[in-house]
Amino acid sequence: MSEQKRPTLELSGERFRAIYDIKGTADEAAATAEEICIEQTIEFPPDLVRRQDILQGIIAEVVSLEARGDDLSRATVEFPLEVAGGELPQLLNALFGNISLRPGIRLVDLELPPALLRWFRGPRFGRRGLREALGVHDRPLIASALKPMGLSPGELAELAAAFVEGGVDIIKDDHGLANQSFCPYEERVRRCAEAVTSAAARRGRPCLYFANATGPARALSDNARIAREAGAAGVVLAPGLAGFDAMAELAVDDELELMVMSHPSLLGSFTASRSSGIAQGVLYGLLNRLAGADVAIFPNAGGRFTFTERDCRDIVAGCERELPGIAASLPAPAGGMSVGRIGEMVEFYGREVILLIGGDLHRHGATVADGARKALEQVTED
Amino acid sequence: MSEQKRPTLELSGERFRAIYDIKGTADEAAATAEEICIEQTIEFPPDLVRRQDILQGIIAEVVSLEARGDDLSRATVEFPLEVAGGELPQLLNALFGNISLRPGIRLVDLELPPALLRWFRGPRFGRRGLREALGVHDRPLIASALKPMGLSPGELAELAAAFVEGGVDIIKDDHGLANQSFCPYEERVRRCAEAVTSAAARRGRPCLYFANATGPARALSDNARIAREAGAAGVVLAPGLAGFDAMAELAVDDELELMVMSHPSLLGSFTASRSSGIAQGVLYGLLNRLAGADVAIFPNAGGRFTFTERDCRDIVAGCERELPGIAASLPAPAGGMSVGRIGEMVEFYGREVILLIGGDLHRHGATVADGARKALEQVTED
Repeated sequence: MSEQKRPTLELSGERFRAIYDIKGTADEAAATAEEICIEQTIEFPPDLVRRQDILQGIIAEVVSLEARGDDLSRATVEFPLEVAGGELPQLLNALFGNISLRPGIRLVDLELPPALLRWFRGPRFGRRGLREALGVHDRPLIASALKPMGLSPGELAELAAAFVEGGVDIIKDDHGLANQSFCPYEERVRRCAEAVTSAAARRGRPCLYFANATGPARALSDNARIAREAGAAGVVLAPGLAGFDAMAELAVDDELELMVMSHPSLLGSFTASRSSGIAQGVLYGLLNRLAGADVAIFPNAGGRFTFTERDCRDIVAGCERELPGIAASLPAPAGGMSVGRIGEMVEFYGREVILLIGGDLHRHGATVADGARKALEQVTED
Repeated sequence: MSEQKRPTLELSGERFRAIYDIKGTADEAAATAEEICIEQTIEFPPDLVRRQDILQGIIAEVVSLEARGDDLSRATVEFPLEVAGGELPQLLNALFGNISLRPGIRLVDLELPPALLRWFRGPRFGRRGLREALGVHDRPLIASALKPMGLSPGELAELAAAFVEGGVDIIKDDHGLANQSFCPYEERVRRCAEAVTSAAARRGRPCLYFANATGPARALSDNARIAREAGAAGVVLAPGLAGFDAMAELAVDDELELMVMSHPSLLGSFTASRSSGIAQGVLYGLLNRLAGADVAIFPNAGGRFTFTERDCRDIVAGCERELPGIAASLPAPAGGMSVGRIGEMVEFYGREVILLIGGDLHRHGATVADGARKALEQVTED
């Protein structure tokens, strides 16, 4: 193609930023930061690029690099908006696609301009919508999970009713409840939703039931529709299993108008190494929000997993921080939480939190309703 | 519910196995292995489970535990088939969902019975079908990628034609080509597919074009249909961005009959730590195959990334090893490969490989056709 006929890139000049922590000496980090700019855009030797507008317009740029210790630097890298092409998967691809394969690079923050945020609806309900649906504004919310796997739909429905009776605000399917032969999705969701609706009517206060809709790609929209028709308030989705954009697609469905609770299954490898992967606040806070999660479940510090208090604070910040046009979501720390820890959790998280307590509600009194009552007392006292 | 009315689990007795490497002393590893059995199934305190058939039938079991050094053990854990519920997302959830959140556990192998493999079609074409489509049986295959990002559809189509002229067997869109304003998906795919078809007719030998169909969840099937109608042989999908099951869904589509090439974008965090995550052979070999990938792209040892020769051998083994009813796929090592390394790569991988060479084909002679000719000479000589 002759020089004259070459198209010219038309770029808006809008840019988004990714902040990376990079291991190595200052010189190594500087080189890695430059490599990121190429790897995450043209993925091609710059000396072979013949169009100046690509060299100048497409390749990302390092806008700052600061030492964070002897062996660590923080690089801020700026991308042209158009590289991400208006789509969440391509945004993720640009932010961390190929460089996920290079140990020693950790995506620790994002700076997204309004022009990019407009691509996303974010949480439909968010913190405010969830509280309005419950009519509870002045205390932490109590959630529990329907389990163990192996119970029948009828048994899970009984359990759900007992949770409602005891005062639980939010009930979710355990993330391990899929569409197993011993507990098929549709029967489970219909029976549990019905049990929650009836029991909530009896107690005179709403309870939100989230059906675990995570499943095969072809089944997601049917699962969501079944949940809606059954009267569930929302769905649990694991973006690590289903994809972040599949979650986003259900979240924006205006006919379903379902609440979305994001579960961290299979996402742990992004945070298993402190020097690689994606920081907790970005993954569970910001990315969940962009993808429309009203609630972000994550493993609390001090539970069965290894998140630190700092990680948890970062997630809360990601759930809440100002993003023009994107509602705040509610953090839901979980993973081996107990009624006995509620005081400590409320002290740490404050009021804007969902305390997701599973097995331990079964330990306080004759029924789980007793456990739920005890949990509710704890948050009401505080 | 009274004891008499409780349903009883009906389980087939079929089981699948996951093999984990666990960090820690022998005692710690033994405790962790038992925790995995609970975490990945009932996720509930066993002492609170009131049904014996759940305790005995649902919870996974450690069937062996062997020391692999002072601070490492290998545990084989057996799950009832029904836990995975006939679905790839729930299989992944059972294998590594919550425990991905615990550093020090690495999923290193799978043993899947025929009863589970029957859930999956696997690669539709596989190694044999791909070679039949090309009519090339006796040498490694040469592939290249359309890039850099920023080129117009017309420029990419010209590049594709030059690759075909030079003898390239397989052409793929770069994984960074999405649906950007400067290079919209449909126009790009139509022009590139047409250019490949025409140029292949001129040279008298087929060339397979793979369009990068990775995109929003709602666009995947349209993207695939556009690729098919345009005459592309297949699609590139990044399961880290789109989800493994979304890839599987396109692979089983009998109307489209598309070849599927899996790209590792965003999957790198699973292998960034040697002691956590999912081993390369499982992730790029076995899971890609279950999800229908005919071709598995991964970063070659000695390129821009940090995979070792051992990692690459494990991936090849995962692509090829006997899985009843599941065709072998073709490994496609990539990531900074050069024409100069072809001899070495052929020595390492043998004949059953796709050598994916990107930018370097632009370095040999006046056009990329010259680079492709040189690459082809190398593999034909061997």
